[in-house]
Amino acid sequence: MMHLIEGGGKRLRATLPWLVGKAVGDSHSGLLDIGAAIEIVHNFTLVHDDIMDDDDTRRGLNAVHIEYGLPTAINAGDAMLAIAFERLVGAKGLDHKDVGAMVNRLAWMVRRVSEGQQLDIEFEDRIAVSEEDYFEMIEGKTAVMFLTCAEVGSRMAGADDETIQCMADWGLAVGLCFQLMDDLIDVLSDSDTLGKPAGSDLAQGKRTLMVIHALSQSDSSELDNLKAVLGKGEDATQEEIDLGLLALNKIGSVDYAREKAEMYHSKAHACLDRLPDSPAILALRELTDYQLKRIS
Amino acid sequence: MMHLIEGGGKRLRATLPWLVGKAVGDSHSGLLDIGAAIEIVHNFTLVHDDIMDDDDTRRGLNAVHIEYGLPTAINAGDAMLAIAFERLVGAKGLDHKDVGAMVNRLAWMVRRVSEGQQLDIEFEDRIAVSEEDYFEMIEGKTAVMFLTCAEVGSRMAGADDETIQCMADWGLAVGLCFQLMDDLIDVLSDSDTLGKPAGSDLAQGKRTLMVIHALSQSDSSELDNLKAVLGKGEDATQEEIDLGLLALNKIGSVDYAREKAEMYHSKAHACLDRLPDSPAILALRELTDYQLKRIS
Repeated sequence: MMHLIEGGGKRLRATLPWLVGKAVGDSHSGLLDIGAAIEIVHNFTLVHDDIMDDDDTRRGLNAVHIEYGLPTAINAGDAMLAIAFERLVGAKGLDHKDVGAMVNRLAWMVRRVSEGQQLDIEFEDRIAVSEEDYFEMIEGKTAVMFLTCAEVGSRMAGADDETIQCMADWGLAVGLCFQLMDDLIDVLSDSDTLGKPAGSDLAQGKRTLMVIHALSQSDSSELDNLKAVLGKGEDATQEEIDLGLLALNKIGSVDYAREKAEMYHSKAHACLDRLPDSPAILALRELTDYQLKRIS
Repeated sequence: MMHLIEGGGKRLRATLPWLVGKAVGDSHSGLLDIGAAIEIVHNFTLVHDDIMDDDDTRRGLNAVHIEYGLPTAINAGDAMLAIAFERLVGAKGLDHKDVGAMVNRLAWMVRRVSEGQQLDIEFEDRIAVSEEDYFEMIEGKTAVMFLTCAEVGSRMAGADDETIQCMADWGLAVGLCFQLMDDLIDVLSDSDTLGKPAGSDLAQGKRTLMVIHALSQSDSSELDNLKAVLGKGEDATQEEIDLGLLALNKIGSVDYAREKAEMYHSKAHACLDRLPDSPAILALRELTDYQLKRIS
């Protein structure tokens, strides 16, 4: 259970509820516990996702199922999810009347993540995946976790409904930007920086926005290079992967996805602009900008 | 998520909280929801256990990972766990002040199941597993779920602390009896009745009480037949499995495990004897007896 956590990670989700709480009001003593619960859920999803996606490395370490074997990895993930709920209901200063709503929210989040992950799995075997499908998938798989951090943080800190909605919108936009950038980084970064093989999404047949965009440009001569590697899995050579990545660039799909990421980045900022300035808001602005700059 | 649930099963855990509630007092309107939550957790553990144990069939159906593939099976199990918590906090008539304790109890149960499952996994590669280790393992893997059903059922129905403890003791004893019988049934029943291959525990190297007992009888000439098949996995022939099962019988390990099951059966009855007779208590007595009679 500690393997990936000790590997580091950005720990964004651990910090966000507390930070959002600070940004909107008086904060709440339980928000670090709630952040811990969400971060544990996040790490649980990584343990299981690496099995589902057949990824061998994560955070520069062996994935848990590589290090400890498949049964232990499945089981460790399950226990982590249980511990997240234990941590949540044990949150400092959590009022009886709020426990049900909080547990419901965390459980809803986990279910939405599973639904997004399931779309991700099913898209690999489908040719026709639309942009709309893609955004539905990443909203579940990635963005609801940010949304939940922001919503729970502002609600627990005593914000009014309008402010809670504003922060939830920010979380959703940042989360969508985050996943778009995650897909871009897989294409643009190198394996050492990533802590996992670059271009692996392509070989695995992941329907990223770039791939969806490229496949819709039916007149491009570059498409064959993309189709040659898409979903080829472990049989894909490095040369094939590189040609596929180059195709995404030449077709303009990388730029297309980057523009979408920038659009959600702007949307996220527009939400923050509605709140009064404070050190916490400044941190949220930096965190929003960081999504576009990060390389891993 | 519905695959195994539609396959049937005994649905003991779904009914138990309500039945125990009836047996000790006024019952509670939320006990069927709570039973549903625990039954969903149980089914989630089956989905993941069949992957971990490499079992292909369950309830006469393909295991979920055989029917839908590994990624979907892992993901479906994860979502089921989330849904169980959603169901729990949505239980009819559940008081604000009880939600935290209930969620904590369900999460504790899931964690204890994972801990028991982990011991089960690790024992397969260990020669020296003691009876004490075995009982620690099955307490987590199996018995805490029955204990939780009984404890939660009696607590929600408003029983006093002594009665709650009495029912928790009953749940623990019935759960231990249940797992001992599960191990015995794998040895004594046939594949058609089981809905999965008979003797598979042996080939897989499971450290059941029978195997632990047999391995401790170092002077038996039958031991070689047991050791020849233990942990041989899919390479084990039916003849080798049959010889191994025969060895367990001849060494007296089957009788030994059955005596232990009968001991917990008596213990469970002793708990029920402390409560006043009622139709619900009669049902719990029958359910306790059923453990010794069931063949699948």
